[in-house]
Amino acid sequence: MNTALKGNCLIGQSGGPTSVINGSLYGIIKAARESDAIERIYGACYGTQGILSGNIIELTDLSEEETELLPTTPSAALGSSRVKLCEFGDDDTDYRTIYELFRKYNIRYFFFIGGNDSMDTCDKISRYFRTVDFECRIFGVPKTIDNDLWGTDHCPGYGSAAKYVATTMLELYEDAAVYGYPQVVIVEIMGRNAGWLTASAALSRINGHGPDLVYLPEVPFSVGEFLNSVGDHLARDESVLVAVSEGVMDEDGVYITDYSAETKYIDTFGHIQMGGLGSMLKSMVINRFKAKTRSIELSLLQRCAGHIASKTDLDEAIMVGRAAVEYALEGKSGYMVGIKRVSNDPYASEPELLDLAKCANYENKVPLEWILPGGAGVTEEFIEYMKPLIQGEVTVPKKDSLPVYARLGVIE
Amino acid sequence: MNTALKGNCLIGQSGGPTSVINGSLYGIIKAARESDAIERIYGACYGTQGILSGNIIELTDLSEEETELLPTTPSAALGSSRVKLCEFGDDDTDYRTIYELFRKYNIRYFFFIGGNDSMDTCDKISRYFRTVDFECRIFGVPKTIDNDLWGTDHCPGYGSAAKYVATTMLELYEDAAVYGYPQVVIVEIMGRNAGWLTASAALSRINGHGPDLVYLPEVPFSVGEFLNSVGDHLARDESVLVAVSEGVMDEDGVYITDYSAETKYIDTFGHIQMGGLGSMLKSMVINRFKAKTRSIELSLLQRCAGHIASKTDLDEAIMVGRAAVEYALEGKSGYMVGIKRVSNDPYASEPELLDLAKCANYENKVPLEWILPGGAGVTEEFIEYMKPLIQGEVTVPKKDSLPVYARLGVIE
Repeated sequence: MNTALKGNCLIGQSGGPTSVINGSLYGIIKAARESDAIERIYGACYGTQGILSGNIIELTDLSEEETELLPTTPSAALGSSRVKLCEFGDDDTDYRTIYELFRKYNIRYFFFIGGNDSMDTCDKISRYFRTVDFECRIFGVPKTIDNDLWGTDHCPGYGSAAKYVATTMLELYEDAAVYGYPQVVIVEIMGRNAGWLTASAALSRINGHGPDLVYLPEVPFSVGEFLNSVGDHLARDESVLVAVSEGVMDEDGVYITDYSAETKYIDTFGHIQMGGLGSMLKSMVINRFKAKTRSIELSLLQRCAGHIASKTDLDEAIMVGRAAVEYALEGKSGYMVGIKRVSNDPYASEPELLDLAKCANYENKVPLEWILPGGAGVTEEFIEYMKPLIQGEVTVPKKDSLPVYARLGVIE
Repeated sequence: MNTALKGNCLIGQSGGPTSVINGSLYGIIKAARESDAIERIYGACYGTQGILSGNIIELTDLSEEETELLPTTPSAALGSSRVKLCEFGDDDTDYRTIYELFRKYNIRYFFFIGGNDSMDTCDKISRYFRTVDFECRIFGVPKTIDNDLWGTDHCPGYGSAAKYVATTMLELYEDAAVYGYPQVVIVEIMGRNAGWLTASAALSRINGHGPDLVYLPEVPFSVGEFLNSVGDHLARDESVLVAVSEGVMDEDGVYITDYSAETKYIDTFGHIQMGGLGSMLKSMVINRFKAKTRSIELSLLQRCAGHIASKTDLDEAIMVGRAAVEYALEGKSGYMVGIKRVSNDPYASEPELLDLAKCANYENKVPLEWILPGGAGVTEEFIEYMKPLIQGEVTVPKKDSLPVYARLGVIE
């Protein structure tokens, strides 16, 4: 093994944006610049799409100013896509395109920042390169607000989204309680199959009021039981704050959103674009109780709210980016860099190597033992797990009191 | 006139919450404590409702700790209501109740923090007390995210809501641009009759990207022209970021939301509870263009986002509260304290006395000359007016990185 493999590196970002994905990009760029082996640093524009179409930019000489703006720039500064690769055993057309591109740019180090689907892409490319005569060290770097990647204690992006959700719940409690008569506020939170982000709404209880009802997709959702729970609060003249995952399903595995005729959209990974659950539940509550009811869909806001990012989350996003480069320089390849919790109080974590194929194929869900019996809340164990991940404030550079973001020439 | 009128003061909060309404409460409490004339400080729980039902708490000895938490506590710490008083010439039942309450508690100073409807209530109480044998000095203290109070350069609460909106637009632009293909993102913003808050979305352009289309209720909204404008962007392969007021109407004065059969709710002031416009427009865009489209309703989030309040706004909220007490101690009564802009660069403002009756009866809308021809944007004059109002950061006291709020014993 040639640990001093010289050549260039390519970085891609893929999947849904987060507040700190550019922190990982920053960590990779910083570590790559410090190495003697990595010569030029390239970025793939719009993830896999840019790799396939040859839409590549050079970041080697990115100015200090833009580089330092990266950690606090939300979304994905290189652009993203949700392109899915088939198995190269079935059709290697795309893989040959990638091979040619990597040869052309002498890409010896490839870092792909993303979630489950991106790890699938990364794993396929990694396996393909083991079959060809061109050494390229390939690493997945995790990011997802869904926190559902296998093997890692948690995922960069989750802590910041969770902090936004928990802060918002505290603010909404103040607002919902203001009129002195019971109101129902239903907050719809992202997370297709895993309820981590919805569960984080309950964090607000460590500092005031948490939601009264928290519904995760890990356990069946019953419309009848939901309405009964809301009714119990209203009968006691109490407001009701509800956090519900967009992906809740009934006992038969039917999405609750499928109960309505609203339009659904299917992305290129075959995932249904969710939404509209909150307004469905709102209608049901109004029909049953005539209570004042609001439904609030946190939508894109929860994944791009860089202004309230978690310092811990951002630091770890940078850490996994750096670690990927360092592991690759040691000669390793075909891994995702996970986060290992070394201690909880005081909180400490370190990077660890995880099997990319497993990360590509398994989803990490909220353990059932952390969900309250009856399925409308989470335990103290969850709160203890979660609390360290939202700690610390990030200072976003501002001009005229509005944030200033990095510009890499992709998103203009 | 007895400028050294001794007695107690009563403070009420009314109407919709803002991020800084408790700043005004803080200003009043601080100034009242400093005066020799004001002995006890009372708070009316849930605004007019608490005044009518005798639900009064004492704040004289509120701890230093809770007092200092007030400025950064969003919503309304005393609770609020939207109770409407009839004219006392028609029926003075409620007014006699208020008179008895004021006598019982020896209320010689009454401060009512609210928007248009609250100024109407305050004006009526003020006029009534001129007809009775009990001197009480009465002041309206402005608050509204809608910025539509007559006479004042702007209203406390607006700057912070605007800062939330502008920051959110910058974050959403990053997110919407990430996939490299055109997306339509429609953001629905509060403001029933006045477009000030929707216009503030355009502030984001001073620091990056503003919305492409901004629709205020001051000018007629045409669904056809909206779709054509969206289509023009999509034809150029560009994403479209739209900011639209919940209250836009067509040329005949019909709310666009009335085009759909969605349920509406009418509050006790006879105002329609809006909402659902964004999803209506989203459906129209999808039906016409099949483009990827999101609609995001900022809902309650925009009025309670204390975590991103404007320091200028908070300082002015405190200033008008203090000034109300000081004016009252000078013997004045029957005014609302407005904000006068003394200079724009560097920005400076001072309190001024405004006729309460006029504040009760007129609405301040966005000047038509600040709206672009065609009605889908705002001019630089608006940006210059608005920019100073969002400046400066507020540090919210936190525990475990989540905000800690004041507790007055009303909202628990």
